[in-house]
Amino acid sequence: MCELLGMSANVPTDICFSFAGLMQRGGGTGPHRDGWGITFYEGRGVRSFHDPEPSAKSRIAELVREHPIKSHVVISHIRQANVGQICLANTHPFTRELWGQYWTYAHNGQLDARLFELPLGAYRPVGTTDSEYALCWLLGQLREQYPEPPPREQLCDFIHQRCDQLREMGVFNMLLSDSEHLFAYCTTKLCWITRRAPFGEASLKDEDMVVDFCQETQPGDVVTVIATEPLTENEQWQAMQSGEMQVFVKGLVVTPG
Amino acid sequence: MCELLGMSANVPTDICFSFAGLMQRGGGTGPHRDGWGITFYEGRGVRSFHDPEPSAKSRIAELVREHPIKSHVVISHIRQANVGQICLANTHPFTRELWGQYWTYAHNGQLDARLFELPLGAYRPVGTTDSEYALCWLLGQLREQYPEPPPREQLCDFIHQRCDQLREMGVFNMLLSDSEHLFAYCTTKLCWITRRAPFGEASLKDEDMVVDFCQETQPGDVVTVIATEPLTENEQWQAMQSGEMQVFVKGLVVTPG
Repeated sequence: MCELLGMSANVPTDICFSFAGLMQRGGGTGPHRDGWGITFYEGRGVRSFHDPEPSAKSRIAELVREHPIKSHVVISHIRQANVGQICLANTHPFTRELWGQYWTYAHNGQLDARLFELPLGAYRPVGTTDSEYALCWLLGQLREQYPEPPPREQLCDFIHQRCDQLREMGVFNMLLSDSEHLFAYCTTKLCWITRRAPFGEASLKDEDMVVDFCQETQPGDVVTVIATEPLTENEQWQAMQSGEMQVFVKGLVVTPG
Repeated sequence: MCELLGMSANVPTDICFSFAGLMQRGGGTGPHRDGWGITFYEGRGVRSFHDPEPSAKSRIAELVREHPIKSHVVISHIRQANVGQICLANTHPFTRELWGQYWTYAHNGQLDARLFELPLGAYRPVGTTDSEYALCWLLGQLREQYPEPPPREQLCDFIHQRCDQLREMGVFNMLLSDSEHLFAYCTTKLCWITRRAPFGEASLKDEDMVVDFCQETQPGDVVTVIATEPLTENEQWQAMQSGEMQVFVKGLVVTPG
């Protein structure tokens, strides 16, 4: 298993606090030693940091943790390898362009051999993970069905259906974004929390660290954080059910699960 | 104009020394204040660092300069914006996947309005630069002509022809890689140097820094560095001619210019 972390916000927000908790699980408090990555959307652009080193010891993770990068959508992943060796090409998140948008994705779980029988379209994997193959299939399906971007409801329905199909082949927890939407799909473990005014204090589970969001935010800010397991111990996270998809835009849920 | 920097090597090699020179041109000794980026290939994988901040002041550039990342192909770019505003989506290098390989590219120069009449195929730009449009066109052409990767000679010829076509629309200096080849095409300014045994000392033009490659390398290492202008003052760089393309694999030229 791996750990996922995502964020959707209505204003550019840094994720230093949540990332500080997550990175401890990469060889610190958790067994996820096989690399990590994070992608930040800023407008339509993305910047990613990928490292095949354990996040708890990574100099690049230290930078991401300390250097606030303001973003409205973030996807991060720390890896405990099952399918595919430990190397940069197998390090999530994976990104491809569709409709002039960067689509970024990270996956937690494992899919069985039936996955590799699904026909690929326009996208091919570069590495050898089941995860990247699943993304290539999913985006190929989207592109084939919709040469141009469809309305939101159709887009969400289509992605939900394809995720359901992947869930039949194993464990498929995932985060996916096109820069506007953040799609979160759960098979076994995924939870989320929306923080908005009045903001309170939160303390990390994995590290001795407390943040007072009141000091860090403006009254109109809405920030949703999604993670494999709750990152804080004094807040109420919403657990997702198997087969549930939530779609967030600007920090808020836009479709029923 | 922007500054390009590329490297092709037969063993994983860091580019800290050359990057130290380049980053000074981003708001230090040069006017290229409009962001910078660098992509490292490690096997088939890539990791990129992109920053819309001037490289001379960038905390991320500092990390790249000090933290040796070993790679066999590197492409870097610092930007002085002409077409397209300063934002992450317009920050080079740009990457797309073709044939299960990541293609990464950076461009220096400016192409005129005729560029935007070239028909796009499978790839669309995310940002608004002429540079990214040219990459999307070039890769779309490649993909249309060759559904599967062609032999090297055909590949090089095809890319050279398409670069010649772009050069008719303005200034097109570029670096492009598929993880194996590093293609360097010159319209106005591009030069390169191959370092191999016996290694000597080199001193940077843009910063008070000398490196003794003899201490840093093994006798069998072959490393080619390509840049807009020579980065060192005591070595002989080879200037490229307008319309010339050089292709490097593992540090060595594989096709005539």
